Parts: sequence; C-alpha cells; structure tokens
Amino acid sequence: MDLIIKNGTIISPTETYKADIAVRDGKILAIGSEFPEAGAKIVDAAGKLVLPGAIDVHTHLAMPFGGTVSADSYFSGTRAAACGGVTTVFDYPVQRKGNTILGLINEKKEICAQEACVDYAFHCCITDLNDGAILEEMQKAVEEGITSFKCFFVYKKEGMMVDDGTFAKLLLRAKEIGAMINIHAENPDLIDLKIAQFKKEGKTSPWYHYLSRPEFVEAEGDKRAIHWAKNLEAPLYLVHMADKEGLEAAITAKTDGYDIYVETCPQYLEFTSEVYKREDGRNFVCSPPMKGQESQDALWKAVKTGGIDTIATDHCPFQSAEKDWGKDDFTKIPNGCAGIENMYPYMLAAANEGKISFNRAVELCSANPARIFGCQEKGSLTVGKDADIVIYDPEKDFTVSVATMHSDYDHTIWEGKQFHGYPVMTFSRGRLVYEEGKFVGEAGWGNFVKRAGRGK
Amino acid sequence: MDLIIKNGTIISPTETYKADIAVRDGKILAIGSEFPEAGAKIVDAAGKLVLPGAIDVHTHLAMPFGGTVSADSYFSGTRAAACGGVTTVFDYPVQRKGNTILGLINEKKEICAQEACVDYAFHCCITDLNDGAILEEMQKAVEEGITSFKCFFVYKKEGMMVDDGTFAKLLLRAKEIGAMINIHAENPDLIDLKIAQFKKEGKTSPWYHYLSRPEFVEAEGDKRAIHWAKNLEAPLYLVHMADKEGLEAAITAKTDGYDIYVETCPQYLEFTSEVYKREDGRNFVCSPPMKGQESQDALWKAVKTGGIDTIATDHCPFQSAEKDWGKDDFTKIPNGCAGIENMYPYMLAAANEGKISFNRAVELCSANPARIFGCQEKGSLTVGKDADIVIYDPEKDFTVSVATMHSDYDHTIWEGKQFHGYPVMTFSRGRLVYEEGKFVGEAGWGNFVKRAGRGK
Amino acid sequence: MDLIIKNGTIISPTETYKADIAVRDGKILAIGSEFPEAGAKIVDAAGKLVLPGAIDVHTHLAMPFGGTVSADSYFSGTRAAACGGVTTVFDYPVQRKGNTILGLINEKKEICAQEACVDYAFHCCITDLNDGAILEEMQKAVEEGITSFKCFFVYKKEGMMVDDGTFAKLLLRAKEIGAMINIHAENPDLIDLKIAQFKKEGKTSPWYHYLSRPEFVEAEGDKRAIHWAKNLEAPLYLVHMADKEGLEAAITAKTDGYDIYVETCPQYLEFTSEVYKREDGRNFVCSPPMKGQESQDALWKAVKTGGIDTIATDHCPFQSAEKDWGKDDFTKIPNGCAGIENMYPYMLAAANEGKISFNRAVELCSANPARIFGCQEKGSLTVGKDADIVIYDPEKDFTVSVATMHSDYDHTIWEGKQFHGYPVMTFSRGRLVYEEGKFVGEAGWGNFVKRAGRGK
Amino acid sequence: MDLIIKNGTIISPTETYKADIAVRDGKILAIGSEFPEAGAKIVDAAGKLVLPGAIDVHTHLAMPFGGTVSADSYFSGTRAAACGGVTTVFDYPVQRKGNTILGLINEKKEICAQEACVDYAFHCCITDLNDGAILEEMQKAVEEGITSFKCFFVYKKEGMMVDDGTFAKLLLRAKEIGAMINIHAENPDLIDLKIAQFKKEGKTSPWYHYLSRPEFVEAEGDKRAIHWAKNLEAPLYLVHMADKEGLEAAITAKTDGYDIYVETCPQYLEFTSEVYKREDGRNFVCSPPMKGQESQDALWKAVKTGGIDTIATDHCPFQSAEKDWGKDDFTKIPNGCAGIENMYPYMLAAANEGKISFNRAVELCSANPARIFGCQEKGSLTVGKDADIVIYDPEKDFTVSVATMHSDYDHTIWEGKQFHGYPVMTFSRGRLVYEEGKFVGEAGWGNFVKRAGRGK
Repeated sequence: MDLIIKNGTIISPTETYKADIAVRDGKILAIGSEFPEAGAKIVDAAGKLVLPGAIDVHTHLAMPFGGTVSADSYFSGTRAAACGGVTTVFDYPVQRKGNTILGLINEKKEICAQEACVDYAFHCCITDLNDGAILEEMQKAVEEGITSFKCFFVYKKEGMMVDDGTFAKLLLRAKEIGAMINIHAENPDLIDLKIAQFKKEGKTSPWYHYLSRPEFVEAEGDKRAIHWAKNLEAPLYLVHMADKEGLEAAITAKTDGYDIYVETCPQYLEFTSEVYKREDGRNFVCSPPMKGQESQDALWKAVKTGGIDTIATDHCPFQSAEKDWGKDDFTKIPNGCAGIENMYPYMLAAANEGKISFNRAVELCSANPARIFGCQEKGSLTVGKDADIVIYDPEKDFTVSVATMHSDYDHTIWEGKQFHGYPVMTFSRGRLVYEEGKFVGEAGWGNFVKRAGRGK
Repeated sequence: MDLIIKNGTIISPTETYKADIAVRDGKILAIGSEFPEAGAKIVDAAGKLVLPGAIDVHTHLAMPFGGTVSADSYFSGTRAAACGGVTTVFDYPVQRKGNTILGLINEKKEICAQEACVDYAFHCCITDLNDGAILEEMQKAVEEGITSFKCFFVYKKEGMMVDDGTFAKLLLRAKEIGAMINIHAENPDLIDLKIAQFKKEGKTSPWYHYLSRPEFVEAEGDKRAIHWAKNLEAPLYLVHMADKEGLEAAITAKTDGYDIYVETCPQYLEFTSEVYKREDGRNFVCSPPMKGQESQDALWKAVKTGGIDTIATDHCPFQSAEKDWGKDDFTKIPNGCAGIENMYPYMLAAANEGKISFNRAVELCSANPARIFGCQEKGSLTVGKDADIVIYDPEKDFTVSVATMHSDYDHTIWEGKQFHGYPVMTFSRGRLVYEEGKFVGEAGWGNFVKRAGRGK
Repeated sequence: MDLIIKNGTIISPTETYKADIAVRDGKILAIGSEFPEAGAKIVDAAGKLVLPGAIDVHTHLAMPFGGTVSADSYFSGTRAAACGGVTTVFDYPVQRKGNTILGLINEKKEICAQEACVDYAFHCCITDLNDGAILEEMQKAVEEGITSFKCFFVYKKEGMMVDDGTFAKLLLRAKEIGAMINIHAENPDLIDLKIAQFKKEGKTSPWYHYLSRPEFVEAEGDKRAIHWAKNLEAPLYLVHMADKEGLEAAITAKTDGYDIYVETCPQYLEFTSEVYKREDGRNFVCSPPMKGQESQDALWKAVKTGGIDTIATDHCPFQSAEKDWGKDDFTKIPNGCAGIENMYPYMLAAANEGKISFNRAVELCSANPARIFGCQEKGSLTVGKDADIVIYDPEKDFTVSVATMHSDYDHTIWEGKQFHGYPVMTFSRGRLVYEEGKFVGEAGWGNFVKRAGRGK
Repeated sequence: MDLIIKNGTIISPTETYKADIAVRDGKILAIGSEFPEAGAKIVDAAGKLVLPGAIDVHTHLAMPFGGTVSADSYFSGTRAAACGGVTTVFDYPVQRKGNTILGLINEKKEICAQEACVDYAFHCCITDLNDGAILEEMQKAVEEGITSFKCFFVYKKEGMMVDDGTFAKLLLRAKEIGAMINIHAENPDLIDLKIAQFKKEGKTSPWYHYLSRPEFVEAEGDKRAIHWAKNLEAPLYLVHMADKEGLEAAITAKTDGYDIYVETCPQYLEFTSEVYKREDGRNFVCSPPMKGQESQDALWKAVKTGGIDTIATDHCPFQSAEKDWGKDDFTKIPNGCAGIENMYPYMLAAANEGKISFNRAVELCSANPARIFGCQEKGSLTVGKDADIVIYDPEKDFTVSVATMHSDYDHTIWEGKQFHGYPVMTFSRGRLVYEEGKFVGEAGWGNFVKRAGRGK
C-alpha cells in the first residue's frame, strides 16, 4: 500500500459512508477498514469528507481570442485546477480554418506533457469541414481518445461559426463513430443586429453586452441545436447553458428519452445580468452573458432536480488591462472569466449549506463528466479507478482573493467570495498535489486521458 | 337597385339566416326583405346559400421559377378564380435581387389592369434589403396599400433566402409601419444536406422530394420564425403550414396572445406524402411537400378549432412537360400545384358534409383573409361592402377535371375529385362573372385592392 | 315599420359598419338604408354604437341561500338588467333535494310571467338524481327549452354537491339528449379542511374566505371536471372561472378540440383577492372568491385571445345587514355579489378604452351566450332576430352608485366605478325599456326563451 | 472474515467494476482485493455479476381481501422473495376500520419474527383517522421505524377509501413528522358507474375489468393526488403506476422540483390489457389493470429515462379456485397477482438484453427503494451496509413455472416466461438463503427493518 486515507466520510453520487481507502500504484486498491499500514503514507481524514477529484470539462488555456491570449497557460491553469480540487482538465483547442485537427491536438499534447500538473483531455472545436476531410479525421481522433467535438453557432465574423448543414453533418458523423458534439448555442445574426443598433445609439457599456445577447437569443440557439439532435437522433452536449427557455427545452428532450446533456457554470449560478451594471462590469463579460434572475432560478432548480448534468467553468481569464480595452465599448472586451479553482469549492459549499447534497455535488462535478465523456478511470472513488482524491474540510472557512488563487490572472470575478468548507488536500493518481492552500505538485505530472467512445 | 338576390340563406362567420340582399353600384345596399324590385336584376337563390366571395391570399401567377414560368397568366388565373368563387386574388411578386419593390409592383399592376377578371392585391417578396433602402421603400409600399411582405427561409442557392438578421430587421420594420411579414419556413441547409445524400445514393424519385423536406425540417423553420416574432413582438403570418409540430408551436404562441397567423392549403388537407409514391407523384411536388397523416390530422383539427386562420392555395401550376423534367430526378421538378379554382368548393364541400360549419368555411376563406390583410371592403356580406357574392348550390354534384377548369394548365392534382355542392354564380362587385360552369366576366374588370395597414 | 334606428354604427362579432336598422313586430326586418319611415318611431343613433342586447347567462334571483334570500326579485333583477343593456336573463333554480325539476321550473316561469321586464331562460341546478328519475325528466326539460343543467362540486354540507359518479351520469345523459352540463368547480373537502383549521386558529376575517378557497382549490375542481368531460366526450360549461391553472387546462382542452366552454365574471376581471383585506371585505365575499393578480392577468389574456367564451355575472346580491352576519366570522357571510346592471357597461368600457374590441365585447356578452345556450332569436343584430338592441354612447360618462342602480340591493361592490361610455337606450323586442338612466319598461313584458338543444 | 465473494463484477447504480467483497458479522467489511481468506467461506463469482439484494416495497402477504386471503403467508412469501433475489420485503397491513395501527403492526411483527426468511418492513394502510387519533399515532409509528403510510382513493364500498380531506390531512401530517404517504390512485365513482353499466349490459368477462378501470380513470386519481401533494408541498409516492397520462403528470411535477416518487410493477411492463381477452384472463385481474400499449411504452420510456423511481411487485396472489369465482363475473375475481420471485430476474433480464443498464436495474430495484423509504443499511454494496447480496449468472437460462417457484400459489401469470440470465445465489446479511434454484434459508431469519424518517 502506498497511501491509506483513514477515518473519512466517503461521498459517492448515491452513498455517504465511513471507510478507509487504500491506494497502490496510483489506483484505488480497496475500500473498507483494517488495511495493513506498513510502508504506506497514512492520511487521517477524521471529520473530513473524502471526494473524487473534480473534472472540469470546459476550459480555454493559452487560447488566442479577442486579439490576445487567455491568461492561463497549461501550467498555471492546471496548477490552479489542482488547488481547487480539479484532477482532470478538458481543454478546447480551436481548429485553425482549413487545418487538420489531430495536428493541433498533438501540438497541445506536447505542451501539456511539459506543463500539465493534473491529468488532461481534449475536446476539439471544429470550424471547417475542409470539404469533408475533417469528417474522416474525426474517426482517427476517436481512436486516439478524442471522443467529443465542439462547434459554435456564434462567432460568424471570427470564422468560427458553423451553419445548420455543417452542424447536422457533425451530429451524424459523431453518432456514427461513437462520439458527441458539444455546441455553443447563441444566434449570431441577432447579436450582430443588436450590436449594430446599440453602437448606432451610443450604448456601449457592458450592460449592452448582456442586452445584445439576451435570454431569447441564447434560447433560439439552444432550441435549434436540440431540434436537430432529436430529429437526427444524435447525442448532443449543450455547453454553458445560461437561460431558462433553452434549459427547459433540453429537459423536455431528455425526459422524452433523447441523448442530450446540459452543462452550466458556477458564474451563471452566482451572478445575474445585474453585474453588468457594476463599475467593473467589463470583468464579468463572457459569452453567453449572465442572465436574469428567472434564468438563474431555473438553473438552480435543474441543478437540484437533475436537469443539469454537469458543472464546468468555461475558464478563460483575461488580464485587467485587456478587459479595459472595452471600457468604453463592450465589443472590445475579450470574452471570458476565471473559474477553474472556484468551481468545486463553490458547489461543495452549496452542499455544505444544504442547497444540494454532497452526493449531488460529486455527481455534477465528477461522476457525470467522467461518464458522459468516457473517462473510465475517473469520476468516483471506486476500487480500480485512479486515486484522484480530494479531502474536504466542511468546517474550514476560506475567502477567495486573487492573491491566494493559483492562476496567472491578475483579478477574478470571484474576489471576496466566502466559502464555509474548503478542500484541504488534492491527490492526483495518489500523489499529493495540493495541501492547505499550497500547490505541491509539479509541471509535467499530468497524463493525457484517452477517452472511450460512446457505448464503450 | 341594380341587383337583388332573393330567398337565399346568407352565411356569415357567426350567423346563418334567410334574407334578401340588395346591391347598388357594386356595393351591398341593404339586407332584409321587401326591397323595391323595379329595374333590378333579380336572382332567386331559394334553396341556395349566399356567401361572400373567397379571397385567395396566396398565388403565384406568371411567376418565373424552376427554369420556366408558372402556367397561369394574370388573365387565366383570375378567370379560374372567378369560376371557383374567388373574388379577390393576392399575388406574390418576387423582388429581383438588388431591385426596388415598388417598381415591380407597378409593373404587375399594369398587367393586372389589362388582364385581371376579379379584384387583386399584392404581397411583395423581399430577397435583399439593398443596404437598407428596401426598409425605407416599405413605408411607401404601405402607403400604396401593399401592407404585407413575404420572405423565404429557403431557396438559398436561388438567392431568395433571408438570414435571421434580415428577417428580424423586416419584422421590426413591418411592426413599425403597420405592416406584416409572411414567412415561408423550411430549413435550407437540412434540405440541401438531404438532397446531396439522396443524390449520392441514387434516390431520385418524387418520394425523396418529401424525404428531403420532412416534417422536422419545416418545423424548425416554423419554430424559429415564431421565436423571433414573439420576442421582437412583431406580427407574423406563416404561409402554407403543413406540419404538426410547427402548427402546435404557432397555436401555443397565439394562445399566449402573440400576433401570429397561420395559413394552410387545401392540398395539405386532402393529400398526404403518400402521393409521392404514385406513378404521377411528380405532379404533386410543391414546397413544402404534403406531409404524413399525423400532420394532416393536426391541420384538420386546427381548421375546426381555430388554430388555422386562413385557407389559401399557393396556386403555382406547371405544365406536364415541365413536371416531366424531373421524371428521373426530383430536384428538376418545378415546385408548385394548381388550386385557385378548387379551394372554395373544397372547403364548402367539407362544410356540406359536416366536417366544419359553413360559417367556419366562410371565415377561413373570406372573412379572416380580409381582416388579417386589411381588405376593408371585402370578406363578408355586410351592408356597405363590395358585392362580391357567391351563390352555392348544396345539392349540385361536380367532378373536377382539367377540361372543366378555367386555368391554362394541362393537368391538375385535383383531377377526379368529386364535390357534393358547388358554386353556381359568382358576382364581382355586383357583376356576374361566373355562372353554372361558365366564365362570363372579362379581362380588366378587376380592380387593385388598396389595403389598410394594421391597426387601421 | 315600427322602429328605425338610423345613422348608428352597428357592431357584430366580426364587423363594424354604418347602417340603419328597421324593426317590425319585434323583429329586425332589414339592415341598410333608405327605409320608408312612415309610421315608424325614428331613433337617431348618429355618433352612437348600436349593439345587440347582452345575455346574462348566470344569475340567482330570489334565491334562498345562506339563511336568507338573494336581494333581487325577478322583477327588480330584470329591471336592473334592462337598465344595464341586458335583454335576456338566465336564472338558476336549484332542485330541492328529492323533488322534480320541471315542477320547479314551472313555478319560476309563473313568477316570471308576472314579474320579468326582459326575456328570461333557465338552467336548472340538479342536486339529486332521485334514483335516476331526474335523468328521465331531463329529456322533458330539453323538450321544453331547458337545455342546460348545472351541478356543484361544492356545498357538500348544504346537500347540493354531486359526487364524480353523479356528475359523470349527468354529463353522459346531457350528451345523449343534446343538452349541456354547467359546473361550479371547487373542491369541498379542501375548503372544509381549511375552514376548520382557520376557525381553530381564530382566523375569521374575510381574508380567510379567500385563503380557504385559494387558486389550487378551484383549479382541482376545474381540472377534474374537464378530465371527465374530455374522456366521456361530453360538452361542459365551466361557470365563473377565476383561476389561472383551471383556465389553462380548459384552454388546452378546447385547443385539443373538446366541446368545452368557459365563463368568467366582471368581478374577477376587476378585483383581486386584495379586496378581502378591506374594511368592507365581507361585501365582496362570493364563491369562488376573487383570486390573485396572476389569475386576473390570465383571465384578461383569455378574454382577449379567445380562451374565455362568455362573460356573465353570477348576480346574487345580499343586503348589508345580511353581509354583516359574518363581520366576525367569514363563514356566516352569505356568498354573492351584484353585477347584472354592470356587466355590459364594464365590458363595453373596456372596449372603449382599447383593451378589447367592441366586436369582442359583443361576442362575449351576447353572441357567444346565445350560440352556446341555444337562444336562436338572440345574440346579434341580424335580419330575422329579436330586436333586442342597445344604443351605446361612447362619450357618456357614468359613475356607479347604489342610488342610480335599478336593483333592490342596498349596496354594491361596484360603487364609485367610473365608466367612459354608457348605454343610453335598451330595446326589448323593439320596445324601449330603458332610456337615459330611467327604466321605462314594465313587469311581465319578458317572455320565456325556449332554447334549442345542441346540434339543433 | 466470514465470507469473501471473489472475482465478480460489482454493480452499483453508477459503477460497474471488478472487485472482491469481504463480509463479517453480516456486514460488508471491505471491497477490493487481496483479503486474508483464512476461515472465510469463499465464493468464486468469476463471470458473474454481484448485486445488492432487491427490495420489494409493495407486497400483500396473508392479506384478507375479496372474500379470501392472499395465497402467500409471511413464510412462503419471503421464501419466494429470497429465491428471486429479494432480501427485504415491505408488507402493507390494512388498518381495520376504527382500530389502531401500531397494534396491527405489532401483530404482524410477531408473525414475521416466526416466519420471515428475509428482512421485512411495513408501510401501514390507513382507512380511518379515528377522529384524529391516528394522526397522533402516526408519530409513534415513525419512531418505531414505520415511516410511510398508504391510503386508497378506491375501495369505497369496502370501506377503505379516503376522501380528499382525509388524504390532505395525511399528507400534511406525514410532512410534519418526516414520513410519506403512498397512494393507490384510481377513481372509485367512475369504476362503479362503469361496472353498473356493464352488469346491466351483461358484459362480465375479464375484459370488462379493464374497461371499468381504463387509463383515464387511473389518470384522474394520479393527477388529483399529485395536485394535492404539490400544493400542500408534501412528499408523495404513487404506487403501481400503470397509465401514461398519470405518469406524465408525475414526471412534470418531479421536474418542477416536487417531492414525488413513482413506482411501477413488472406486470405493467410485460403485459397489456390484451391479456384480459385470453381464456385465462381472470388470472391477470389486478387493480389497476394492465393498460394499453401506449401506456406500456410510456412506462418503459420512464424506466429508462428516470421518470420511474422504483419497481415493486404488488405481490398478492390468489389460488386458481378463487380466481374462478369470477369466471362469469369479473367483479367476483379477487384482485391480485404473483410477482415477488419474478421482479428482479425480470428487470435484470431486461438489462441483460440491453433495454436498460444493470446499473439502472439495481437503482430501480434496490438503491432507490432503500433511499426513498429510509432503509439505511440496505440498497447497495457499500462498506458498512448489510451483506444482502445476489450473485447473478448472465448466461444462465431459466423458464418460470409454478413448479419451480417458491410461493404457495398454484398458478402464476409468469408461467412460461423465459429469462436469459438468472440469480444463482442470494445472501441475507451474509447468510446464504438461496442457491441454484433451491431455498436454503430458514423461517425466522429475517429481521424487522427499522426505517429512518425523511431528512434523516
């Protein structure tokens, strides 16, 4: 035995129970009691919760966007992940128009091999089918463990948008090869229409970022994506759901037995569009924007009742100086916010105050992401799986501050947020990588997670 | 008094009653009895129903399409109208890309002044905003009595499609100026995707015309159009609704108080997609295609309960030789079917056999079209309105045949259809234009109907 | 000609037009112009609206209830009706347990023959099937023109409630004989449960009248009634709908093609449950009680979009001294409020201020009641129908006060209500019965309205 | 260690993994590998699935009903349970009108102490509040581990029905004390109405059992029960859901966040109302009856997507001679069928053929029943829980026959049913009670399961 975590309370999506966990060679060897302790590192988790590491399936590290690059490298981003209890990070490389996808993934893999502090996986964003060549390449990607692909209904001018025909081809191809399509669903035309109108009217504060992408503009995209997925009988994953109407359409489709999944992010659960009226509103600019109270209430209800499948961060921070570009013109603000280190503490604090159960928090942040995206060695504290483990102290108080975070950004929308209960240790495959506020891991420790296709 | 129609049973949308109608100067002077008969033409309508003339708000006369021109000229089309009890015909001129709309309308008006046998009005199809100039011109069009405009979600390759942004601009502009947008709602990308697939697979019979534009492909367009109209709070008129899912979305929006109207056509009520399996399936090719039984049932239910607002024909016949172009390739079949002379007899026969009331038939074919599209002198037998009157013999049997129709086409999808009950006279502004199977009107009799804007 | 109403603007459910109306022998002889005036009374309606008289299909005159008798006799009630533009009044006699229904109706007819100032009809409330004898008697009632019957889900202790089995038998029997069942839908058990609880807690103000019959308690009854009617495929008329959830269930059923009708009352459109917090809250006590704002909004929406079929009053006033019985205990307040003289002015004022059209007001208050309940000579200004006509001055201002009303009650919930626009004349079968604030009719003028069964 | 189950594949609601299970003192001590084997019974489960024992939360053992007593005693019923992989059985004692509930429970406990072969628990059926005394006694019942109570909307003549007021009181009381109400929801009045009609018409075959309790008669009860539970914000458990409309109402309420649970039974998943047309249709008579195909499809969809929470049997067999009482009159057939030994094999076979996952089968039959009804030591193979374990051979074929079943009944509706995959061993708290077709347990082994209240 290399490691024994004793006396803790283990949380699975369905059970809460006291038992010890024995780890060998980075795997969970056994759960129970009376394990031989000789030679093992012993961790006493009495009074603590023992949780599976979180899986953040939505991040943008070192991503070129909005005229700059997102603030976190693969090193700093995964370091922050470790310190927030996240033991697997999914990144979203974006196909350069006309280029292959596997070439890009391989570039990213090489960087991660050097930099990643926890395990990592990739979805790939597809922007161009290259006359169908990409549809062929997708099969190879699946063989290499890239079993999900994203596309955008938005970013028309940026050349990232796919039209309905391309989207449909991707859905059908993904279904065929055991993969899944993720969709960023907003309507580009209506956004452009509103932006043009607001610019003409001189309405350029961050509040108009929200008003140029209001609830119904997201809802249209959500509903259209769901419509095609249903009727083509293809699996679909809706990223960063933020509006009530789209959410309800997704829930109806799920209830009707369609293979549809919904992700939301902590920022949509914590903030509403009111933040865009703040002095520092530009720092909250992301797409889709935070929505009104009614949407937030609907999201929380779905978090509780099962309508939401996963929580992820859309982590894509930009530095203050970059956000300031849009001080007087919301269209110049790079879109994106921090979150990778805050997600798990946020959801666990919600559990700690009784809004949801710890079981549900673990399901949303770890078990469901693993299951939906084919991380077979991840997602729960089960014998045989990777020993990605978080020790959580339900009595520890913590206040978020940019100074105590482990990213490279210089500000955070979570500044000042207080948590009752906080992670005190994170293990990545049995190795301690975070302890009591300090990163204790290393660049290059993380492994690539080769994912299984659907139905595997 | 010029004309007295005596002893008939008058049908309004809400009443059925016996009374005489006195006409002077083309207008209904009085309804009642004991009118002085001196000098008046007396028509005895004993045992007959006296109905307002139908208004066919959806025709394509002399329209260039699919590499040819639709078979009916403004003369033959309006002649057939008169013989089918239609006393007002709406045509849909299509803006030539980059050109003005009023110029086109004026061309059409001039032709109609020479050719039209009954009164006529125009919607205008907009394909291009000409950098916004068309938005300006729309105001003038409204002033000239063109108070509705159509656009297409389909016909992308033909250059007729509008994107969501253009559609939204049109909705907003129409709302502003008291006009309304009509939409042909199907999804072009999915149609193209399916056509490409079928061609690759060698599936080119008319049955694949249906399968390339199935229910869900229309439904998407319907639902998207409704979504924008609702959220932009603009009036919307959905032409030729043929599928259940889109229809239900429209009904829900109407029940929620939105200003949304739904048209369907007799062909969708009479035929299902099964016709495309027939030897002569190509003759039934129109867009949207006939749908499955479930959609037809939903349409009939809505015809009965109020979900459908209007019946119109989408009259756009092509000659047999033209239809034959697509004998071995459904994509080469010019899209469109005949209907202008069959609509009113069809709906009245449905009433005569008890499927709907005569009141409802009159509401769908005359009163609602007049109200929705601002034909203030039309749509009912009311004192002061135009004496557009149909005498209907509920006992007369009639079998449709191309030989007895009054169009210029050489075949019809209605061939062999038997009606119990048939119009025996049509009056246009008090002038007899049709009697017992014979056209007795004249080219150039028809007047342009200057329509009122919404809220007028 | 006996009477010619000239120069007015006639309102039908679908048309608004200028014409004269000629009346002979109490019937509308003709509509138009240029009528010979010799010997006729001439009324100049220039600048006025000419409307069909309203039909109040829900009143309780001289009704024993709550330990007393409702304040209006058949004389004073129909006098007030005439002065409010109501030309046909439906009364609801309640079967005395174990007794026949026709005997009761005949008693009422004899009284009305002496007292009624306008025409009258009866629904009959059934409380007991008398071992099936009543099911037989219903057929005879239909033959005598009583083609609708009401039952109660409430008033269990009062012996008026019917259980689901009895209700189902009535629905089936009514369907069989071309009649219809009206239902007062609230749940008696839940009301009793809540009353017992409130009494125990000393909560006895009128506010607890509302809380003992809140939205969901009415909704249950509505939904249950609709469920049986749908599944037994029998027509159903829901009286005094006051809650959103029940209303929406009814609208869904109607859209699905079921033969279901919904009535609401002016008091639910004007007042919310907030009135029960007023000092004089007891005066507003009726059942069902006024509901919250959300329900009122839903009712107005349905008034506009067609979800509501009829407006009626549930006129059942009690004197102040009787209302005072429940000053300290809401369960002792006789349930019921005045309304017969206020309904038509209220709905027409709503039209005058643009909330609905005058056409819709006329449809709700006259055409629909006539059509739904088989008053074939009533409900619109159509040649051949009874000359029940109201002249409405859209510029006349009027303030309601018990002093200027024509009932026998000594207070009214409508006290102080201001109307812009008011009826200035009412004709019953061509006879003037009301003019400029004064009743000018006579007791005994009213005739019994023999109604047609359904499908007749 | 007392017992080690080696080399099997363990199934939890969320995981499928290979590991050994070590048992001591009837509890699961550890899960993993390399356990010291000295002194332990070793079971080799290679190639087998290792599952938690099922929990049948709906049985009627030795129950007086329909003029007789159900065929299985607590001994034979729990023996059959063991042989079907069921390790906890819930019985439904029915309060004798006017009597206490705890007295009854204690009687049953004493019998079970002698007879039960596996663990047992009780819901208690309440038929009479005894002027409120029962509401008091419920609290004591909860303290003794009876944390759920059932009532009936049906069985009016049998004196078991509760009215809406009583039901509401029970819901509110249960909420207050951390308990839950289970409801048998059908409408008694409509059933009686239909039975009376059928008897009059001489329609007495079992087919009329179905037609006297068709879909809509169950749906009304379901929807009414849900309506009260929602609006009183009390938890509700719907037993033996068999119709689509009620199911959909429940799913909607669950999606809306209400605390509502739905049970169905294998017979509704396997048979439709068509069975009542069979020669031996009477043997399938139970209440509610099997429904049409559309309902069955909806049930299966909900089994797959989460709309159904639990599978239970409603086990209540009667002997052939008793079923024969109703040969010529369906109203004389004792209602009820066998199922306790078939449920788990049935659901597991469904998993084995791919209709659902094994994880979902285990969730429906064990984890959810345990969680919903507070069996904290049961429901999954988790360290610390009771070693209630089933070894399942996915390759074993088995055909049901009354001869090989372990009940005391003399026929079964499952006769001839073939399963691919079958349980080969059942352990109750670590003791082998069933092996390869043979009962190897003993009367009196079973313990009473003291259940936790809600929120505990």
